[in-house]
Amino acid sequence: MMENSTPSYPPTDRTQVRRRAMRGVYDKAQVHAILDEGFLCHIGFVIDGQPYVIPTAYARSGEEVYIHGAPASRVMGVAHRELDMCLTVTLMDALVVARSAFHTSINYRSVVVLGRARQLTDLEEKRKALRLFTNHLIPGRWEEAKQPTDQELKATGVLALPLDEVSAKVRTGPPIDDEEDYALPIWGGVVPVIQTFGKPVPDERVLAGLTAPNSR
Amino acid sequence: MMENSTPSYPPTDRTQVRRRAMRGVYDKAQVHAILDEGFLCHIGFVIDGQPYVIPTAYARSGEEVYIHGAPASRVMGVAHRELDMCLTVTLMDALVVARSAFHTSINYRSVVVLGRARQLTDLEEKRKALRLFTNHLIPGRWEEAKQPTDQELKATGVLALPLDEVSAKVRTGPPIDDEEDYALPIWGGVVPVIQTFGKPVPDERVLAGLTAPNSR
Repeated sequence: MMENSTPSYPPTDRTQVRRRAMRGVYDKAQVHAILDEGFLCHIGFVIDGQPYVIPTAYARSGEEVYIHGAPASRVMGVAHRELDMCLTVTLMDALVVARSAFHTSINYRSVVVLGRARQLTDLEEKRKALRLFTNHLIPGRWEEAKQPTDQELKATGVLALPLDEVSAKVRTGPPIDDEEDYALPIWGGVVPVIQTFGKPVPDERVLAGLTAPNSR
Repeated sequence: MMENSTPSYPPTDRTQVRRRAMRGVYDKAQVHAILDEGFLCHIGFVIDGQPYVIPTAYARSGEEVYIHGAPASRVMGVAHRELDMCLTVTLMDALVVARSAFHTSINYRSVVVLGRARQLTDLEEKRKALRLFTNHLIPGRWEEAKQPTDQELKATGVLALPLDEVSAKVRTGPPIDDEEDYALPIWGGVVPVIQTFGKPVPDERVLAGLTAPNSR
């Protein structure tokens, strides 16, 4: 008989959620679902003791997360020197409106990945990674668009960060007010935060008769 | 006669935008506008050489950005030890759909603040900061909600990060394809990314007759 638990990432001293530990999640399926829903991450790295945090697109493939950038960028230099990085993805779900201003909060789901990134060198692996990025951002776009040349692939830095040391943190549900405050004549609840895509806007050089693809 | 330029943050070696330098912005008014539009930031800090990036709410007051948290949290410990931090805010505006997959991009506006945070100790200054947070997240909510007690203020850590070493990076406009690719029968343009708020959802203990406030 199978063990009665789903696969999870073993917490380490560095990924153990300390504040509000009940919000800590290590379940692989939940971590993957958060990573697959988002497409913008924030990468943290250290240069001369100074932490930097920069936004970038990402896509997950199995137990790795890919990011890309120019070979001359700071983050590629960090990867080249095999320094520790942190990749964080945050999805905002709702504003949590408590009766007490002190208990104002946000419903969110976030994933934190710690570790060192592998630099892709094989052109075919890079091509697969770029396909993954493109289709993660705009489903089906890779197949509609012009494919990159080998020269372009060579000029692109792609990093793979392994999903080894990983934690998620999730807040859901209504506000949690102090018991006596529920008697106050003050509204409490949540206001959903919704991210949607607007109508595609063609640029000025779209050929006559071409309509926006179905990909978004 | 006034100098013919608006106030800006002087770039340092650490905030000079290196990749795609034309996207670098140091103008104070633009930096403030980005900070005032967002409400979720990512904080970077270093513990034992490992960078960490965590999401948290923030609000700007003049030339400082406030964040808050439990006194026992990692980030408060970092501030207490006067270590360097990085605060990054990213607003996503559009998916940039190029004819060539290689030129797929995102229109965004981001601000990066480097520096060391000041810990607020004065209760009245903390109260003002919490008012700012609450009303930044949900305009007008502070005045509708129950105010925090002195005990709650004492139990809240509030940090102020000065806007000294600051840069913004902005990408706007259509895709930039290679000249020859504009002749391809492939659609190009942008797809707006829109963040909105849904209908407020009351919790199960809202008193009869109370309706959601106008604050969101």
